[in-house]
Amino acid sequence: MKDFFKDNDKISAIQAQYEAQKIAFAPIVFQVVRTMRDLKLLEILADNKDGLTYEELAKKSDLTKYAIQLLCETALSANIISIKNEKIYLTKIGFFIHSDKMTNTNMNYNHHVNYLGLFYLEESIKSGKAEGLKVLSDKDTIYPALSTLPQKVKDSWFDFDHMYSDSGFPKVIKILEELNPKSILDIGGNTGKFAMLFAKKNPNVNITIMDLPQQVKLAKQNIYENDIKNISTYEANILKEETSIPKDFDIIWMSQFLDCFKEEQIISILKKIMNSVDVNSEICIMEPFWDRQSNETAAYCVINTSPYFTAMANGYSKMFKYTDFEKLLKIAGLEVIEIIDDIGLCQTLIRCKK
Amino acid sequence: MKDFFKDNDKISAIQAQYEAQKIAFAPIVFQVVRTMRDLKLLEILADNKDGLTYEELAKKSDLTKYAIQLLCETALSANIISIKNEKIYLTKIGFFIHSDKMTNTNMNYNHHVNYLGLFYLEESIKSGKAEGLKVLSDKDTIYPALSTLPQKVKDSWFDFDHMYSDSGFPKVIKILEELNPKSILDIGGNTGKFAMLFAKKNPNVNITIMDLPQQVKLAKQNIYENDIKNISTYEANILKEETSIPKDFDIIWMSQFLDCFKEEQIISILKKIMNSVDVNSEICIMEPFWDRQSNETAAYCVINTSPYFTAMANGYSKMFKYTDFEKLLKIAGLEVIEIIDDIGLCQTLIRCKK
Repeated sequence: MKDFFKDNDKISAIQAQYEAQKIAFAPIVFQVVRTMRDLKLLEILADNKDGLTYEELAKKSDLTKYAIQLLCETALSANIISIKNEKIYLTKIGFFIHSDKMTNTNMNYNHHVNYLGLFYLEESIKSGKAEGLKVLSDKDTIYPALSTLPQKVKDSWFDFDHMYSDSGFPKVIKILEELNPKSILDIGGNTGKFAMLFAKKNPNVNITIMDLPQQVKLAKQNIYENDIKNISTYEANILKEETSIPKDFDIIWMSQFLDCFKEEQIISILKKIMNSVDVNSEICIMEPFWDRQSNETAAYCVINTSPYFTAMANGYSKMFKYTDFEKLLKIAGLEVIEIIDDIGLCQTLIRCKK
Repeated sequence: MKDFFKDNDKISAIQAQYEAQKIAFAPIVFQVVRTMRDLKLLEILADNKDGLTYEELAKKSDLTKYAIQLLCETALSANIISIKNEKIYLTKIGFFIHSDKMTNTNMNYNHHVNYLGLFYLEESIKSGKAEGLKVLSDKDTIYPALSTLPQKVKDSWFDFDHMYSDSGFPKVIKILEELNPKSILDIGGNTGKFAMLFAKKNPNVNITIMDLPQQVKLAKQNIYENDIKNISTYEANILKEETSIPKDFDIIWMSQFLDCFKEEQIISILKKIMNSVDVNSEICIMEPFWDRQSNETAAYCVINTSPYFTAMANGYSKMFKYTDFEKLLKIAGLEVIEIIDDIGLCQTLIRCKK
């Protein structure tokens, strides 16, 4: 584990006052910078490394000089551009906003999925429900609403989800293959992304996706369209008392699944799994833990994904700190046999046994 | 004038990548920090300088441990708190968010007035109209809607407006008194705040408020309630061609008035004034110019007030850079005789003659 954010409070009061204003004006800077990105102003500046005047940028972008100056003054104050001798240049921060895929995916997700609903974060904290979701859907959680969200919201949600979870699949599939499983139970397998990747590469391994009926329906469709024979499905709500976990799998696999639940629900799910496995089975859990990231920037991104769960997703889950998650594994009686960090962008694999 | 933001781009690429993520997650940090302030978590931490555990903070605030941990992890990542040996401490930035009046007023204004409408900044830039205003009102500009806005929005708007403009009144009134005027024309006098202050202190000076009918109505009510005899009113839309400026005033006074207009409108207003004054009259303009602030933090706040004008107020005005404003004065033929900075929080007084 790493001790991130240990340099907090090492700035002067004068600097702290400035940083407080940056937080107080954060929505302004966010929307100005996003607008400059989406109206291609950052791209035009990236393509003109010798700098452009306001007039030249207005002409190239087909916007008024008022619009250009307004956006550029905020961008100047936020270190997105620099201005020398009346010419505007893109800074390194501006360059990342313009061309870094991760930054763009985070920004789209925070604009299209989270921005409006986050206004209701305080209400969500008070009620324990995703009060911000009302701006997108009348459902209680975002999961059954996903397929019906407006296109831009849906695209931004899936781009974000896939960037984080899918980026880990190639490496983790190799690790799981080395365990030589004959069967895998993919709990919370969702639309089948992981299962299909693994099943295609390993036609002799039988994979069962266990999930809610609406997710299984989408997974079945995908499996059918990809003509994959070694995946079956199991419809169940894991939170229901009468639900039990199917037995006799070599690996129980959960990828970014447990972060959708409360601590007490996680313990109950893990205990159910413990009742279904024998000593030879492995329980493999992949999650992005913020205290196991390779650098503070990654820790920052993982942490700040959590308020989405409160305001938009379900009101009660979050990304984990590993030292907290470890306690839940212990309570449920799991023995950790190996922890593998740096899988994909931000994932950690925990291999456990009974 | 000061050359603010000249240190832009003096950071490494690694630091720039981190700063880009801070912008991409800015709405998350804003809403978490505001929620912590409004749920009194920052106050509780300020009152417990020896630190509190998550459990202790949950107990003292009557929130769940989940809520506390979620908010505190984002706050940790944003340097609002520090954590040592599982105890949470408020940082200097957290202290400013908790107890600095200016920071609080800025944050309330950006949450209650601007946050939701800022989602439509891109559309406002494209259309030249305040497209974000639709979340609050069906009017074209915010000014006629002000009196009917929801209470929290109205309070936050007026607190912000008064903090910036009213803070300059005591000092500027002394400066104007030294000019020994017999009469003042207060163009854009709004609800009469400046006029009433000046008139009470100087019962022998006659002040005329010139503004739109709905503003004059509110001003008249205030003047009546305060039983002030030396203020009269003049209803007019200064943008209309047929409107002329009343003559024979010693001082033409405009406080945070011209920043509500486009450059060509400002030139036209200044030219109209030039046609009404003689060589002995003074034209006194008070505005917050971002390049004349005493420090970069103040410049940052003034600049980032501008996107409100685009998305929420009218779609086409902004706060000025003095070097731009100077050009407009020149085009209209005004001669600047004195510039006085550091009036109140952020104002500059420009004394001009024909």
